[in-house]
Amino acid sequence: MTAPLIERTVFIVSDSTGITAETFSHSVLSQFEQINFQQIRIPFIDSAEKALEAANRINRCAQEQGQPPLVFSTLVEPEISLPIRESNCTFLDLFGTFVQHIEIALGMKSSHTVGRSHMGGKSKQYNSRIEAINFSLAHDDGQFIHGLKQADVILVGVSRCGKTPTSLYLAMQYAIKAANFPLIPEDFDRGSLPATLAPFRQKLFGLSIQAARLAEVRHERRPNSEYASIKQCRHEIAAAERLMRMENIPWLSTTTRSIEEISTKVLEEVGLNRRTY
Amino acid sequence: MTAPLIERTVFIVSDSTGITAETFSHSVLSQFEQINFQQIRIPFIDSAEKALEAANRINRCAQEQGQPPLVFSTLVEPEISLPIRESNCTFLDLFGTFVQHIEIALGMKSSHTVGRSHMGGKSKQYNSRIEAINFSLAHDDGQFIHGLKQADVILVGVSRCGKTPTSLYLAMQYAIKAANFPLIPEDFDRGSLPATLAPFRQKLFGLSIQAARLAEVRHERRPNSEYASIKQCRHEIAAAERLMRMENIPWLSTTTRSIEEISTKVLEEVGLNRRTY
Repeated sequence: MTAPLIERTVFIVSDSTGITAETFSHSVLSQFEQINFQQIRIPFIDSAEKALEAANRINRCAQEQGQPPLVFSTLVEPEISLPIRESNCTFLDLFGTFVQHIEIALGMKSSHTVGRSHMGGKSKQYNSRIEAINFSLAHDDGQFIHGLKQADVILVGVSRCGKTPTSLYLAMQYAIKAANFPLIPEDFDRGSLPATLAPFRQKLFGLSIQAARLAEVRHERRPNSEYASIKQCRHEIAAAERLMRMENIPWLSTTTRSIEEISTKVLEEVGLNRRTY
Repeated sequence: MTAPLIERTVFIVSDSTGITAETFSHSVLSQFEQINFQQIRIPFIDSAEKALEAANRINRCAQEQGQPPLVFSTLVEPEISLPIRESNCTFLDLFGTFVQHIEIALGMKSSHTVGRSHMGGKSKQYNSRIEAINFSLAHDDGQFIHGLKQADVILVGVSRCGKTPTSLYLAMQYAIKAANFPLIPEDFDRGSLPATLAPFRQKLFGLSIQAARLAEVRHERRPNSEYASIKQCRHEIAAAERLMRMENIPWLSTTTRSIEEISTKVLEEVGLNRRTY
C-alpha cells in the first residue's frame, strides 16, 4: 500500500467529551482509505458562545484549506448546534439524524439532553466500572487470590499472552470484574490447573497465542532470555492448550485479535452477554 | 425520578465487535429516559448465513413482543445487511446513512470495508496502545520512577483521587503513556514537589477531589482509619491544592467527572490534543 496523498480535516464537536463521536467517525472514515484525515476534537461545547467560537475555528480551517472540512456533531440543543451547522462545512448530525426515526418508532419525543452533566452525581453504573477496574488491578497475574469468588471471569494463559490488557478493558468498558491467572511451567509439569482455580472452573476463560508472536513480546520484556526463546514459547503454549482442552476451558488465540475483539468473544462465551433472543 | 415503565428491545448488529455501535446507541437512547432499553449485541456478523440467523432472532423478538425492535447496524456489505434490513424492525443504518454524504463531500467512493479483519496484522497504532497500557501499569502510584522521561503525562494528587483509572483510560483509549505519582503527607510537610518529579514539571497534571467524597472512597479501602478520616482528607487536599497552585501545575477536581471527562480535559490541557485551528 502506498501512502495516502489526500489530506482532509475533520472536526468532532460535542457538548460532552466527544469520545462517542470520535470513535464513530474513525469507523466511518476508515472506509476512505485513500485519505489521510486530520481529526480535531472540540469537546464541552455547552453554550452558544463556545459554539460560535467553534464555528469560527471551522470557518478559519475552510478558508485556509480552500475546502469545507467534515464536521461530526453530537450536539443536540438547536441553539447550540445552529452556528456550527451554518459554518462552512459538511455537517454530519450524528444524533439528530436518528432521533427523528426513533421518535416515530417509539411514538414519543426525545428529551434532547445527551451528555450534559450526566455525571452530576456519579451513577451506580459508573461506580461499578471503577470498582471493576480496581478489582482487575488487584487480581492481575494471580497476585491476590482471596477475592476470586467475586470475579465475573478469570482469564488464564501463559505469561504475556494478553491477559492483563483484556482484563482491564473488560473492567473499564463493561464493569466486569475480570481477574487473570498465569499458567506456568510447574502447572504443565503437574499436568493440572492450579489448585486455587479448581473451585472457579465455570469462570475460567483461556487465552493463547502463536509461539512466534509470544517470543517477540517476551523478547521486548526480557531480551535473549530462555523465557523468550521460541523453544520455550512453543513448549508452554502446547502445554497450556493441552491443559485447557483437557479441562474443557473455552479459549481463543489472541494473535490477530484486538483487546476489543477478545473481550467481545469472552462476553459471548461466558454468557455475560445475555442472549434472550 | 420514578422507574421507567416501558420496555423496548434494541439489537446492535455488527460485522466486528459492535462496540462502536453500542456506545453510539447508548448515547442516542439516553435521550429517551422513560424507556428501559434491553440491549442485545450480535457481533461478528460477517457472512450471509450469520446475517440470516440474526434476522431470525430479530423476527422472533418482534413476534413475541408484538412490536418491532430497534436495530442499530454498522454492517456495510449490502448482501450481509439485506436480511437484517428486511426483518421486522426499525432499521438504523449507522454508517450507510453518512457514507453517502461523505462520498459526495469528498468526491470519491468508500471502500465498504469497515471492521472486517482490520486486525489481520496488528497495527502500529494498536501496538502502541498495548505499550501504553503496560507503561501506565508499570508507572502506577509512583512505583517505578526510571521510565518517567518516556511519559506523555504524569498525573499527581492525593491517594485515591482517581489517578489510576484515568491513567489506564488515557493509555487504552489514546495510547498515551500516563504515569501517576501520589502526593503524600511528607511532601506537604516539606512544602514542595517530590524531587523525582522536578525534571518533569511540564508533564505534570494534578487531580483533586472533594474531601467528603475522598473520605467515602478511602473508607471503602480502610474503614475507620485515620487515613480515611474527613479531617485527614481535608488536610491533604488543601495542602495538595496549595502545592499545585504554587508550582503552577494545571489541575481539576474529579468529584463529579467521569474518567472520560477527566481524560478529555487532560488531553486539552497538556496539549496532547493538537489544536491546529
